[in-house]
Amino acid sequence: MKHLLAAVVVAIAAAAEAADPLPSWNNGPSKQAIVEFVAAVTTPESPDFVPGPQRIATFDNDGTLWAEKPVYFQAQFVMDRVRAMAPQHPEWKSQEPFASLLNGDLKRVAASGEHGLLELAMATHGGMTTDEFTSLVEDWIATARHPVTGRPYTEMVYQPMLELLEYLRVSGFKTFIVSGGGIEFMRPWSERIYGIPPEQVVGSSVKTKFELRDGRPVLMRLQELNFVDDKAGKPVGIHEHIGRRPIAAFGNSDGDLQMLQYTAAGPGRRFCLIVHHTDGDREWAYDRESSVGRLDQALDAARTNGWTVVDMKREWKSIYPPSKAPASDAR
Amino acid sequence: MKHLLAAVVVAIAAAAEAADPLPSWNNGPSKQAIVEFVAAVTTPESPDFVPGPQRIATFDNDGTLWAEKPVYFQAQFVMDRVRAMAPQHPEWKSQEPFASLLNGDLKRVAASGEHGLLELAMATHGGMTTDEFTSLVEDWIATARHPVTGRPYTEMVYQPMLELLEYLRVSGFKTFIVSGGGIEFMRPWSERIYGIPPEQVVGSSVKTKFELRDGRPVLMRLQELNFVDDKAGKPVGIHEHIGRRPIAAFGNSDGDLQMLQYTAAGPGRRFCLIVHHTDGDREWAYDRESSVGRLDQALDAARTNGWTVVDMKREWKSIYPPSKAPASDAR
Repeated sequence: MKHLLAAVVVAIAAAAEAADPLPSWNNGPSKQAIVEFVAAVTTPESPDFVPGPQRIATFDNDGTLWAEKPVYFQAQFVMDRVRAMAPQHPEWKSQEPFASLLNGDLKRVAASGEHGLLELAMATHGGMTTDEFTSLVEDWIATARHPVTGRPYTEMVYQPMLELLEYLRVSGFKTFIVSGGGIEFMRPWSERIYGIPPEQVVGSSVKTKFELRDGRPVLMRLQELNFVDDKAGKPVGIHEHIGRRPIAAFGNSDGDLQMLQYTAAGPGRRFCLIVHHTDGDREWAYDRESSVGRLDQALDAARTNGWTVVDMKREWKSIYPPSKAPASDAR
Repeated sequence: MKHLLAAVVVAIAAAAEAADPLPSWNNGPSKQAIVEFVAAVTTPESPDFVPGPQRIATFDNDGTLWAEKPVYFQAQFVMDRVRAMAPQHPEWKSQEPFASLLNGDLKRVAASGEHGLLELAMATHGGMTTDEFTSLVEDWIATARHPVTGRPYTEMVYQPMLELLEYLRVSGFKTFIVSGGGIEFMRPWSERIYGIPPEQVVGSSVKTKFELRDGRPVLMRLQELNFVDDKAGKPVGIHEHIGRRPIAAFGNSDGDLQMLQYTAAGPGRRFCLIVHHTDGDREWAYDRESSVGRLDQALDAARTNGWTVVDMKREWKSIYPPSKAPASDAR
């Protein structure tokens, strides 16, 4: 009898584990808050029930779905592109901020300020067709490696967040990326890595122009900013692309504050979550003083409003998924 | 035996009819072309097979999914709004084009040109929150009646096109609206009427701005144009919102030409269709000379490129769905 009881306990535990939709999350307050929220909005008898089509969840990308240190990965793409394009641009040798970048003097590049960085971004993101840009991103994302871990950037994504995306989708949510990063920088791989198709990616963009090139219709990417999907731009981007207010939003920095506020302000039950980078050993530890991914006002807002703050160090069993790619020499 | 055979024939015919996904389409060349295309891209063994997520179909709205005569329905909304707002704007009595509109002199309104019409549009579409505008559209669409048929505008949609939308979705397509009309003018009812959710609607827009109003986050609609989703703007809007090229596109006017060209130019099998308004009895007959929904260059392009042109008079068994609403006095 005792033996039978033990077997039952083991079976129940195994079943519970098998059914756990968030196996990389420790049983801490964040996991509990997520599971409670999902149950509340998906149970038909619940007073907080939300019909399927209105279950919109928006996720920041840099620092929320994948890492953002030592620099935003798209900045690394810009640097790699400038180096690759340099032979065709001899004038860059004496033209800032290109010259400093090519000399490896990133402090001087950073000192060129917003204008200088925009110039680098436009030189590398505009002046080609949309199909050409997509190919460049696909090639880069397939070959580039993270300077610290040696992993492909697509393996610098957070395993617990991949599970969360899938858990929400299985629960009838439509998941969107709403990132300050370039919309066309994410779309070529977002479906494969996150299960989020191109039409559910919102981000910053350059202007494009329809042209007939040798009679063939193409979209040219201009060297001109179209939209900055950051801070107060995030609710604007959400409204423009999605057309309804999310009921759940996930971010990690002050760039996400307005998206979280906008989400929280809707009627009915809402869920706002901040990924707090507290794990200096397995990842990076930073918040109020960081230049990349600064989390200051949004952390205060989270405490004032009772938003969920994930302590990565304590609440995540693992950070990245198991690697499938051979590590490069950089490791 | 003869009796049995007859019964079998009847049963087969009934089954064929029951299985007909496009019952309001006569068995003409357009229906045949649609069914052949869908079979070609959805049959796994077909050389033209397209995986589900890439089955993107884009539809113009005015003149393609619903009628557009005697004026674009959104123009009727603008006129109704100006009249409703006039008591709060005594200055409009002497200010063009408002004065002419309020006097019912629509020719003088039209003579105010693009600038005048834009002014009317901005006065009625901007200067309020996004939630407030949505309420205005919802109220109007629920109560306004078409000046000729007396039907609610949401019953001025084309029954054959509703069947086509559903047929494509059942065949694994994701259906989008890509309209020159206002994106927020369509979103409040597109899901209910067309089965197309807000996040799959692309259209023209005004700029919006995130604000805290009495501490409450809102999006203010500015009286400033953000994007015109017409002509060469349609491929731009498609790229921005969807991020991949449609494999099928449906339009009815020169405003759709670039969308059709862009769609046709992709690799693999493509389908482009134009609804040709040929039925002056049941609907309206117009093409090259019409100021609303002019079909001239796109009709030539259709003939040159072998796109499908629907002869509404011959190919559609019915135009509108059966009415559910009581007719108004206008009928």
